[in-house]
Amino acid sequence: MVFQRKHILGLEELDAREINLVLDTAASMKEVSERDVKKVPALKGTTVVNLFFEPSTRTRSSFEIAEKRLSADVLNFTLSQSSVIKGETLLDTARNLEAMGAGVIVIRHSMSGAPWLLAKELHSSIINAGDGSHEHPSQALLDLFTIREIKGEIGGLVVVIVGDIRHSRVARSNIWGFLRLGAEVRVVGPATLIPKEIEYMDVKVFYTLEEALKDADVVIMLRIQMERQGSEYFPSLREYSKFYGLSREKLRIAKDDVSVMHPGPINRGVELSSEVADDVNSVILDQVSNGIAVRMAMLYLVASGGRNV
Amino acid sequence: MVFQRKHILGLEELDAREINLVLDTAASMKEVSERDVKKVPALKGTTVVNLFFEPSTRTRSSFEIAEKRLSADVLNFTLSQSSVIKGETLLDTARNLEAMGAGVIVIRHSMSGAPWLLAKELHSSIINAGDGSHEHPSQALLDLFTIREIKGEIGGLVVVIVGDIRHSRVARSNIWGFLRLGAEVRVVGPATLIPKEIEYMDVKVFYTLEEALKDADVVIMLRIQMERQGSEYFPSLREYSKFYGLSREKLRIAKDDVSVMHPGPINRGVELSSEVADDVNSVILDQVSNGIAVRMAMLYLVASGGRNV
Amino acid sequence: MVFQRKHILGLEELDAREINLVLDTAASMKEVSERDVKKVPALKGTTVVNLFFEPSTRTRSSFEIAEKRLSADVLNFTLSQSSVIKGETLLDTARNLEAMGAGVIVIRHSMSGAPWLLAKELHSSIINAGDGSHEHPSQALLDLFTIREIKGEIGGLVVVIVGDIRHSRVARSNIWGFLRLGAEVRVVGPATLIPKEIEYMDVKVFYTLEEALKDADVVIMLRIQMERQGSEYFPSLREYSKFYGLSREKLRIAKDDVSVMHPGPINRGVELSSEVADDVNSVILDQVSNGIAVRMAMLYLVASGGRNV
Repeated sequence: MVFQRKHILGLEELDAREINLVLDTAASMKEVSERDVKKVPALKGTTVVNLFFEPSTRTRSSFEIAEKRLSADVLNFTLSQSSVIKGETLLDTARNLEAMGAGVIVIRHSMSGAPWLLAKELHSSIINAGDGSHEHPSQALLDLFTIREIKGEIGGLVVVIVGDIRHSRVARSNIWGFLRLGAEVRVVGPATLIPKEIEYMDVKVFYTLEEALKDADVVIMLRIQMERQGSEYFPSLREYSKFYGLSREKLRIAKDDVSVMHPGPINRGVELSSEVADDVNSVILDQVSNGIAVRMAMLYLVASGGRNV
Repeated sequence: MVFQRKHILGLEELDAREINLVLDTAASMKEVSERDVKKVPALKGTTVVNLFFEPSTRTRSSFEIAEKRLSADVLNFTLSQSSVIKGETLLDTARNLEAMGAGVIVIRHSMSGAPWLLAKELHSSIINAGDGSHEHPSQALLDLFTIREIKGEIGGLVVVIVGDIRHSRVARSNIWGFLRLGAEVRVVGPATLIPKEIEYMDVKVFYTLEEALKDADVVIMLRIQMERQGSEYFPSLREYSKFYGLSREKLRIAKDDVSVMHPGPINRGVELSSEVADDVNSVILDQVSNGIAVRMAMLYLVASGGRNV
Repeated sequence: MVFQRKHILGLEELDAREINLVLDTAASMKEVSERDVKKVPALKGTTVVNLFFEPSTRTRSSFEIAEKRLSADVLNFTLSQSSVIKGETLLDTARNLEAMGAGVIVIRHSMSGAPWLLAKELHSSIINAGDGSHEHPSQALLDLFTIREIKGEIGGLVVVIVGDIRHSRVARSNIWGFLRLGAEVRVVGPATLIPKEIEYMDVKVFYTLEEALKDADVVIMLRIQMERQGSEYFPSLREYSKFYGLSREKLRIAKDDVSVMHPGPINRGVELSSEVADDVNSVILDQVSNGIAVRMAMLYLVASGGRNV
């Protein structure tokens, strides 16, 4: 089977066949990470640039480890907002990196759509590492991979996404991904954090966590941006946590073998209690671990450019 | 032919034979960047330190990619001004890096002459990545390489350097380089930005861009430091741009096949219009691309230390 | 002989046999650094994370070069204090890095004991690169290595540690190390900078440098934190330097072949005069150079996990 795309920009544009190809490739990559020598020469001589316009140690580190396991030459190109203002346009920066020989550019940018702009104008392969509140495909793919590995199949599962749906690129990518693979997707959060456009997506909206959790196979807790506290969105962390935080008690409403996910970093005592974070149902560290294999697969597929895999 | 130097510090001290050897070596290196596996083992096991006392993502990234394509072990050692004040002297820092086994030190420093100090005191090979307003040899060499590739030969060309000649290490290195290879060099800019010492160099000075452009084969637009605006040097960007900015209209004064260069990052609408930047005459992205090959050549030649190449 | 430990956390817990095994391994590693191709494949495919919660260019760079010479995949994970406050706990950060496949975590943290916490909770190997004012084992091991190389043996030597004993992790680790290998250890400094607990250690306390230096084989000058000046600890740098700074004159009190050490970066004119720093008795740059070999040995021994070496 052949991966026809040169870029991985978002889950919305991938079909089930393509998503499964990424997950299958990730399964092979996971074997590499279990070997004594955790390295393959797949991207030897390929320069991969991590072009991050937003600070991110975790996602960037996960991509960097993945790139090095594929033997790529890695360049971290982190730009503070200030240097962008002072300097050149996004497109000029990216064209420069292309001219320097970047085979793959992994981009994170606060502007929704930035990776598509690059994909349109450059010859390098583009991977979206998070654009504004739009998409975060590598996170959704590693979530799908983790759940498929645990549950065997995604189709028919009940998946609940909890929290700030409005501003979350993790939510958006996961909605597309789980829907494509046939799951039932529910979202729940304060009314202020559920975007209006949600009615155009094939998801069920809830306003109390207890109702949403009934028969849940998977619960994805979104990270709360602390600075939103006291804003128009919610009055206080304490109140948010009381209604939308996941305690062991509330978790009992879900299925016994429910998987609890979180993109990290977690705020213990806010989105979930410490008990739940470290519980046997928590797959949070599996997500981190699978992130390496999934990102290796993404890099490999876009770099192999439509060759048989 | 043998490269006798252990360091590459500036263009002023290189003769035509040496410059041509760098350019010829760069031509071989460019082939490496066109291969599927863009990597050679030439510097395997050699530690190259990028010692940057001034912030620079572009030049540092270009060196870093070049170093990795040569299979060097790369260490980025970036020092903010504050840590230098608090800490040790430049020479102590450099001696430490030498003691750690640095085979090559690529240094950028705001103090003119800093690379010569290191070359005198250390056993490591030193490459100047820009010192104060003095020299920027890798930029000049990549400019020469780009023009030689396009025009076949440098001798006899008319090269116009436009803008802030006074503070520009790019201007200084390019003047030496193009003169050595037999070009006619013209400089043009506001009188406040033409240094007095220019009369001791074998260049022609102009004060209007239109006059300078007559019969030009190459135009090198220097970057304007935005913070100079409103200073003693020039009243406003708008006025600067009106007189010394390159528009398509003014460009018609030059030869039809004139090459437009810029060391980047460009300020669109200031040094040149967007049209000119993206025009067929613009070789700005070729410069960036050739920067990798030229820096590979520089690293290889100083590290090979006088061996036959 | 087998190194039984998975971690290297401090010198207090190592016995003479273990310390000597590290030093012997470092001697082999030093040969690697003298080869043309300064690289061995010992840690190929192993991800080593440099997890630094305090800024440090020197120690981090030394570890990074050591890791690359062992062919490890290196990830620099530097966290400013701010991002830690905003973010997750130390343990969550470390568990994430473990989940990403970190074979070895090299940690520097302002909190004494942080590396032990990680060693207790994680499966990755932990190397302490400095915790609070507690231990700095790689520094002590490279000091021991340097002295053993010069003097042939540690046992019976008179070692004087000068300065801020109270806040110095370098002092603490060196005291343990030199005592284990049978040296006589003396400490000297202003009474305010000698901690009370010193009486429980098997060292001799002096308050004048002249007395402490009699018959000294080794003098270790500790770095003075400039910001302590004018505090309760000492009135001024000038006064500190007058009484505890090492001049050529004072050095004459020690043995003729005394070795002068400093962990760096040195404050010329404060802890020691420029003459002494650059004197034939100074082994400061040998320390830096040996740091690479010693850190290679530490990484290799913990990563090889009790296998025969």
